[in-house]
Amino acid sequence: MSEKVSPSVIRRLPRYHRFLKELLQSNIQRISSRELSEKMRLTASQIRQDFNCFGEFGQQGYGYNVELLYTEIGRILGLEDAKTMIQIGVGNLGKAIVSHLDFSSCGFSLIGLFDQDPKLIGRKIAKLTIQDTTTLAAFCRQHHPTAAVLCIPEEAAQQLSKTLVESGVQCFWNFSHYDLALHYDDILVENVHITDSLMTLGYLASNPT
Amino acid sequence: MSEKVSPSVIRRLPRYHRFLKELLQSNIQRISSRELSEKMRLTASQIRQDFNCFGEFGQQGYGYNVELLYTEIGRILGLEDAKTMIQIGVGNLGKAIVSHLDFSSCGFSLIGLFDQDPKLIGRKIAKLTIQDTTTLAAFCRQHHPTAAVLCIPEEAAQQLSKTLVESGVQCFWNFSHYDLALHYDDILVENVHITDSLMTLGYLASNPT
Repeated sequence: MSEKVSPSVIRRLPRYHRFLKELLQSNIQRISSRELSEKMRLTASQIRQDFNCFGEFGQQGYGYNVELLYTEIGRILGLEDAKTMIQIGVGNLGKAIVSHLDFSSCGFSLIGLFDQDPKLIGRKIAKLTIQDTTTLAAFCRQHHPTAAVLCIPEEAAQQLSKTLVESGVQCFWNFSHYDLALHYDDILVENVHITDSLMTLGYLASNPT
Repeated sequence: MSEKVSPSVIRRLPRYHRFLKELLQSNIQRISSRELSEKMRLTASQIRQDFNCFGEFGQQGYGYNVELLYTEIGRILGLEDAKTMIQIGVGNLGKAIVSHLDFSSCGFSLIGLFDQDPKLIGRKIAKLTIQDTTTLAAFCRQHHPTAAVLCIPEEAAQQLSKTLVESGVQCFWNFSHYDLALHYDDILVENVHITDSLMTLGYLASNPT
């Protein structure tokens, strides 16, 4: 079924999951597509179409069962299937990510931290000891991580992504400016370009409607 | 003209800007919509439609003039019009943002840093001294910042966004989980939910095509 799901529906799933979690925390057990659409700022028909990609969740005149929908979207997102992940780069951004992010609630289990800075190697964050990037290939051969977070500058990303791809890592969460998808086939890349988001805000601020 | 531009076109502008900058850095002076579409993984007709929202940039049989298009997209994004911005929260994530991000290349000028942690107040980062959040309202009354970055937890965001909105701040770059747009009208909010991005990668890893 997954091959039919469009990228824009996939991108909305985490948002639905967040909103449904908030509803559950407020003890709201069911919600109409109209209410959900107001909260999510999408049309009710878009929401119905999105959920229809995955099966029938709503009931005419009743709306959606929040807990059922929350659980099902979590299952579709693969949140329970803890994929192993390593993180390369534990500078400011990397430290922020590893200390504040709950990887397990996103379907990943963080099993290794790497940096090339001698001042960081050997330090412990989030129960993991930061290892030297020179040991990366050996670690991957032994532990076969599914995914890697890249919190490193462009040149380091270019060099280390080669090592990672050659060692069998197939999924990348990329905070660097290096465009991995241009250089490797058959890998999955999710790029995070936070400056794009700031520029979008700048456009809106410069072009008030 | 800006009111006709759809949100999805606006979201692609920073990407075009990034790609065109790379082309300029590689001394590429013109590019066809086909080449650009391959590089950007969009259809050539989508690219032509996007650029048509802003006027005529291409020439039949010649393609696009890279420098002209780069300059024009920068102008549309308002990059030269340095809007004043303050940042609330200088923890790990906030420190990463203020030390690594070039605000001015995104159309903003960072004029103030705030935190409530006594260990941080008075420290200097990026030529700015971290100020106490209790002085936030007074600072806003004096300097009228256009925008604020929120790198603080949800409760702090709830409390301080009230202060900021009441002090006239109208644009928010929001890294917190607090949903400002639900509580205030007439403000611009750009939310950054990096866990949504990680969940999307998780979906793709769990549902290989």
